[in-house]
Amino acid sequence: MTVAGSDPVSFEELQLAARNHGLPLEALRWPLTPVGLHYLLIHYDIPMVDAAGWRLEVGGRVAAPLSLSLDELRRRPVVSLPVTFECAGNGRALLSPRPRSQPWLVEAVGTAEWTGTPLRSLLAEAGVNADGVVEVLFTGSDRGVEGGVQQRYERSLPLAEALAEDVLLAWAVNGQPLPPQHGAPLRLVVPGWYGMTNVKWLERITVLDEPFAGYQQAEAYRLLDGQGPDGPVTRMRPRALLVPPGIPDFYTRRRLLGPGPCRLEGRAWSGSGQVTAVEVSDDDGRSWAGASLGEPVGRWAWRPWALDWSPPGPGEYVLCCRATDATGERQPSGPVWNRKGYANNAVHRVPVTVTAS
Amino acid sequence: MTVAGSDPVSFEELQLAARNHGLPLEALRWPLTPVGLHYLLIHYDIPMVDAAGWRLEVGGRVAAPLSLSLDELRRRPVVSLPVTFECAGNGRALLSPRPRSQPWLVEAVGTAEWTGTPLRSLLAEAGVNADGVVEVLFTGSDRGVEGGVQQRYERSLPLAEALAEDVLLAWAVNGQPLPPQHGAPLRLVVPGWYGMTNVKWLERITVLDEPFAGYQQAEAYRLLDGQGPDGPVTRMRPRALLVPPGIPDFYTRRRLLGPGPCRLEGRAWSGSGQVTAVEVSDDDGRSWAGASLGEPVGRWAWRPWALDWSPPGPGEYVLCCRATDATGERQPSGPVWNRKGYANNAVHRVPVTVTAS
Repeated sequence: MTVAGSDPVSFEELQLAARNHGLPLEALRWPLTPVGLHYLLIHYDIPMVDAAGWRLEVGGRVAAPLSLSLDELRRRPVVSLPVTFECAGNGRALLSPRPRSQPWLVEAVGTAEWTGTPLRSLLAEAGVNADGVVEVLFTGSDRGVEGGVQQRYERSLPLAEALAEDVLLAWAVNGQPLPPQHGAPLRLVVPGWYGMTNVKWLERITVLDEPFAGYQQAEAYRLLDGQGPDGPVTRMRPRALLVPPGIPDFYTRRRLLGPGPCRLEGRAWSGSGQVTAVEVSDDDGRSWAGASLGEPVGRWAWRPWALDWSPPGPGEYVLCCRATDATGERQPSGPVWNRKGYANNAVHRVPVTVTAS
Repeated sequence: MTVAGSDPVSFEELQLAARNHGLPLEALRWPLTPVGLHYLLIHYDIPMVDAAGWRLEVGGRVAAPLSLSLDELRRRPVVSLPVTFECAGNGRALLSPRPRSQPWLVEAVGTAEWTGTPLRSLLAEAGVNADGVVEVLFTGSDRGVEGGVQQRYERSLPLAEALAEDVLLAWAVNGQPLPPQHGAPLRLVVPGWYGMTNVKWLERITVLDEPFAGYQQAEAYRLLDGQGPDGPVTRMRPRALLVPPGIPDFYTRRRLLGPGPCRLEGRAWSGSGQVTAVEVSDDDGRSWAGASLGEPVGRWAWRPWALDWSPPGPGEYVLCCRATDATGERQPSGPVWNRKGYANNAVHRVPVTVTAS
């Protein structure tokens, strides 16, 4: 497995990797990812928002625009929901040639319990005029330049998706007020979709009668030049990850495992339906065995899987895992390249050295 | 500024950068770093420690060995102390040739309020036999391989340093129980020293009558082949960092700043004494102006600095800042190379484009 060589990592990619971070894979052991271990992708700078003066504006094609303080939002119906988030760019650094952006390997994921109020009741309160309305736009307060365009981070959802039952405006995570890096004081949570959908530092919701054509919708987050269909990045593809067994070497992260039976375990998720099967291989994908599945952490959250493994003997192994979801979609054995490096859900491979004693 | 090219970033370095993470520099705005934004360097895997069954063992050259539960520790004197931590490898990726390890740029820092009990009262309780005792060893429960040696992470302190007033055994950070990544249920906090000293997931303290010669003391964390003196890495060198002004470009992180007056601000610290001066340059270090200093967040924590800047006009600038501490030590203009890439406290440089409108 190589990243350098003919395609060296740039200073820019290293800067992004030093700021943002993935889930250390051993933290897959926690059903809800502790704050600070959940993956983070911050497009621009984390804004310092004064929650006391902050208001959420709801406008556009609505009968009655709203302007709400955090306290006013918190007096509305409250829902808590465990949701798995995954960055759309997860797996990018395993593509070749490697698209230039945040160089994720496989760990841009996390599951948290988000607490907030349903978006659809707020939209009902504002009175969405169904005639001609097609999308709902979410604008954050984070600002920057991308693709030469000065912008606030903003993304839209088709109206039907915005009105789905479990879409939340969240002010708490794992029972704590949102920390700055997760979008304080308020963020969007759209279960099942890749992470770019969950707009942080939300300050405005605009109901639109034409599709939003801003940078993050029309330029970024498109599947381009791939072998799959072109189009927008939407729901998370199925993926299983393995807690690397044994102990690591510091620099190489190579795993060292003693002889004898070993429980392999991990988590699996999909944005399009429940994970229905996880399979494990100890020979780099030549043969597969079915793992047992535990109860999902929530209907929009990963589920645990496990398999007892007896290494045939000392030596080198490449452990793999792959998930299949209720739609029948199974992870591919290798990456499906696309120009911007999205949605690479190739099987997770973990090289392991089994020792003699 | 380049990292790639003749000295490409390896897959191993990228793996480390994806797991570990620095402080996003805009988060220098917070006097106490929110949990999740503080830098993290995890040598091996984060262990899952069962706090209920956990005990701290205190042994070696003591009159009365101790074995204490977390509840028993919490019934001892409680101290809360804001402390700035910095990784000894901060600045490593700006050295050339680049030592192969976690490739930090400048952001491996954070300040938190740690709550725990003084180490020296616990050592007094155990009865340290002064005759012949030279060091105190701290052993964590995290295991891995480094330099070919299977080990638990462990580091020692000279006896006099272990008995210093502000050395704590901490079970809380920023008023919350320690999260797993910061060493739950208990970690060492040694104010002023580089981060490797603050052993996480502590399970054993051993009073020694000879110097500890384990890997993390004798092999790692040595200043080797540098232009400075060889020897152990100990206290943090002075360093000032700047909150990058304006807004970033996503990929390059290049700053874009409008015309007109602008407040430059940041934080500065040193492990050997208070920071007594911070200077700022807008011409890549050719000329310097003194910044105003605010009150330190604590006697072992960074202090804020600020300077009002009026860019002379549109164009390209390289902003720099440097600190001097009470011992008279000032940051060098460029890196001082050493084989393992420790303690590179060269001035912080932030390229900025000032626009015409």
